[in-house]
Amino acid sequence: MEQFIREVSERIQPVHLEAGRAAQLHLDQLTKPPGSLGMLENLAVQLACITGEVKSVIHRKTVIVMAADHGVCAEGVSAFPQEVTQQMLLNMLSGGAAINVLSRQAGADVLCVDIGVKGNMDHPELLNHKIRQGTGNMAREQAMTREQAVQAIVTGMNIAIEAADRGSQLFVTGEMGIGNTTASSAMLCALTGLSPEEVTGRGTGLTDSELKHKAAVIREALALHQPDGQDTIDVLIKVGGLEIAGLVGVILGAASQGCPVVLDGFISAVAAVAAYTMAPQVKGYLIGSHMSAEKGHRLALAKLGIRPLLQLDMRLGEGTGGVMVLHMIDAVSHLMNEMATFSSARVSDSSGNISL
Amino acid sequence: MEQFIREVSERIQPVHLEAGRAAQLHLDQLTKPPGSLGMLENLAVQLACITGEVKSVIHRKTVIVMAADHGVCAEGVSAFPQEVTQQMLLNMLSGGAAINVLSRQAGADVLCVDIGVKGNMDHPELLNHKIRQGTGNMAREQAMTREQAVQAIVTGMNIAIEAADRGSQLFVTGEMGIGNTTASSAMLCALTGLSPEEVTGRGTGLTDSELKHKAAVIREALALHQPDGQDTIDVLIKVGGLEIAGLVGVILGAASQGCPVVLDGFISAVAAVAAYTMAPQVKGYLIGSHMSAEKGHRLALAKLGIRPLLQLDMRLGEGTGGVMVLHMIDAVSHLMNEMATFSSARVSDSSGNISL
Repeated sequence: MEQFIREVSERIQPVHLEAGRAAQLHLDQLTKPPGSLGMLENLAVQLACITGEVKSVIHRKTVIVMAADHGVCAEGVSAFPQEVTQQMLLNMLSGGAAINVLSRQAGADVLCVDIGVKGNMDHPELLNHKIRQGTGNMAREQAMTREQAVQAIVTGMNIAIEAADRGSQLFVTGEMGIGNTTASSAMLCALTGLSPEEVTGRGTGLTDSELKHKAAVIREALALHQPDGQDTIDVLIKVGGLEIAGLVGVILGAASQGCPVVLDGFISAVAAVAAYTMAPQVKGYLIGSHMSAEKGHRLALAKLGIRPLLQLDMRLGEGTGGVMVLHMIDAVSHLMNEMATFSSARVSDSSGNISL
Repeated sequence: MEQFIREVSERIQPVHLEAGRAAQLHLDQLTKPPGSLGMLENLAVQLACITGEVKSVIHRKTVIVMAADHGVCAEGVSAFPQEVTQQMLLNMLSGGAAINVLSRQAGADVLCVDIGVKGNMDHPELLNHKIRQGTGNMAREQAMTREQAVQAIVTGMNIAIEAADRGSQLFVTGEMGIGNTTASSAMLCALTGLSPEEVTGRGTGLTDSELKHKAAVIREALALHQPDGQDTIDVLIKVGGLEIAGLVGVILGAASQGCPVVLDGFISAVAAVAAYTMAPQVKGYLIGSHMSAEKGHRLALAKLGIRPLLQLDMRLGEGTGGVMVLHMIDAVSHLMNEMATFSSARVSDSSGNISL
C-alpha cells in the first residue's frame, strides 16, 4: 500500500504554466483596467495552470468530508463532547449541516466518509471506511499504527480518484472530528518546527485556561513521541488523525487526476502541509479559500505560500469556507468566457487606442 | 425638489433591532459552534434588522449603474481617455462588461443610467436621465449647479423607488465614469476633513508622479471652492459628480423603501458617506462588500463603521465587488432557512446536553 501512495504521488504532473500565461494575456484583453479584478485574476491564472485551459469551466465539484474521532479528547481539549462527531455526521447525512446548505447553493456534491468515528453508524449515504474507533490518545500512546495511517491515506486517494473518474472536476476538503484541531496543531508543530504555543488555537470555543491546557497536552505528546517532521506518515502515526490522513490522500489523489483542490480551514491546511511534505509538486493544485479564526491556519497557509481569498472569521470546518470560494471560481469561469475584449467592444485602452 | 429629497430621507425607518436579536437567537440554535460562521452571522443579523424577518429571503436584486463624465479629466487625472465612459456604458448595455457577467451569475438585474455622460447615446436598454454633458472641471469651475445636483439625487431616488415598487428587494450601487475617483476623493476630503494626500489613490492605474499630480489638483479645487462639509449638496455642486449624486439618491431611495443597499467600491462608499451626512438613519441599511485597492475606500468605510466582507484587491468599479457579496447574502438566507437546530438534529451542544 505504501507503494500505491508513492505511485499516485508520482502521477501528479507539473501544472501548465503556458496556459497560465495565456490566461493572463486574455485577462489583459478584457474590458477593464489591467489587474483590476485583483485576486480573481490570480485565481483565473491558477485554474488555467491546473486545467491547461485558458477558459476553464468546472461543472462538477465534490466536497469530501472525512470524519473521525480523537482519543486525545480524554484530556479535555475540546469544548464539545466526543459523541458530537457521530451526531454531526448524521446531521450531514440528513442534509441539515452548514456544509449541506452551502454545497447545495454552490452546486457541489457532498461525500461523507466515516474513516474512524467512535461508535457504529448505518446510513445509505455514508461511505463506511472506518479504520478504527477513533485514534489512540496521543498524550499516552500513538494515535494509530503505520498500517492504519497508510490505509487512511489510500482510502482518501481512492475516494478522490473514483469521484474524478465519475466526472468530478474539483474537490473541496472537509472534515468533522471533535478534537481534531489538537491533532492538527500537533502535526503542524511536528512538520514545521513551530511551538505548540504559536500554533494552538481555541478550536470550537475554549477559554484562556483551556487553551493553555491544550497547548500543554500537545507539548507533552510531541515530547513523548518525537515524530520525524520529514516523514508525514510518522507524524500521522504519532500525533495525527484518521480524517487528516484521509484528507492527505484526497489531496494527493485529486491532484494526481489533474483536479484543483480547494482547502477549507486549519485542519485541511495541515493536511495540505502533510501532503506537500510527501509530494511537493502538489502545491500548484492547492487553492486557498478562507483564513479562519484558528491561529495555526495562517501559519499552515504561509508554509504553503497560499494567500486565501476570504477572511470571514469562520471557524466551522466541514468544508464550509472552501465551498464559499466556489462562487468565486464560477465567477472567474464566467468572466473568462463571457467578458468582451477591448477590440470586440470597441473600447479604448489606457493608451487611448482601440486595440485590434 | 429639495423638499422631495427631505421627504424621502425622512421616510427611512429605524431598522428592526428586535428581529436582529431574534436572528442571533436562531443562529445560536443552529448545529455549529456559537459564532463559528463569523461575519456571515453579522450579515444574517443585519439582514434581519433591515427586513424585519429572521429568515429573510431576497429574490430580486438590482444593480444600478450610474454613468457620467468628469470635466476634471482635462487636468490629466486618469489613465483612461474620457470617451471610455460612453464606450464602457455601451459595453454594459451589450452585456459584455464584468458587471453584466457577474450579475448574471448572481441572479441580479442591471439598470444602466446615463446621468451625465459626454456625448449622446441611444440604446433601448439605457435609462436616459442625462442632466448635462459631464461635470465642469472642478479645477476651474463648479462641477454642477445646485439645481443639477438636486435633480441628480432625485433621479437616483426615483429609479430606486420605482424598482422597489416593481419588486426589487435589494440594491447594489454601481458606477462608470472616467475621472470619478478624483471627484470622490475631493468629496471625501470635504465631507471628513481628511487631506487629499491621505485619500487619493491610483484609480484605474496612475504612476507615482500622476498620483501626486491628482492629489495636487484636488487640493487646488478644494482651496478654490471651499465646500461646506456639513452640506452634501454644496459638496456635490463644487467637487462632485453626477453619478455620485445619483448614487446618493439611490442609497436614500432604497433605504426609504426598507431595502438593503450593498455598497461596491470607493465611489459608492463616498456616495454613502454623503447620504449619511444628509440622513444618518440610512446607516443601518448599508452593507459593505469589498475593500478595494483604492486608498480612500478604507477611510470612507471607517467613517461609516463598516467592515467589508471581501478583500480581493479589486478596483474595477461598476458594482463588481458588490455583486460578489450577493452570493454571501444568498448563503445567509439558505443557512437561516435550511440548517438544522441542535434539538431537531439531536446534536449535543457545548454543555454536553441535547437542547430541547
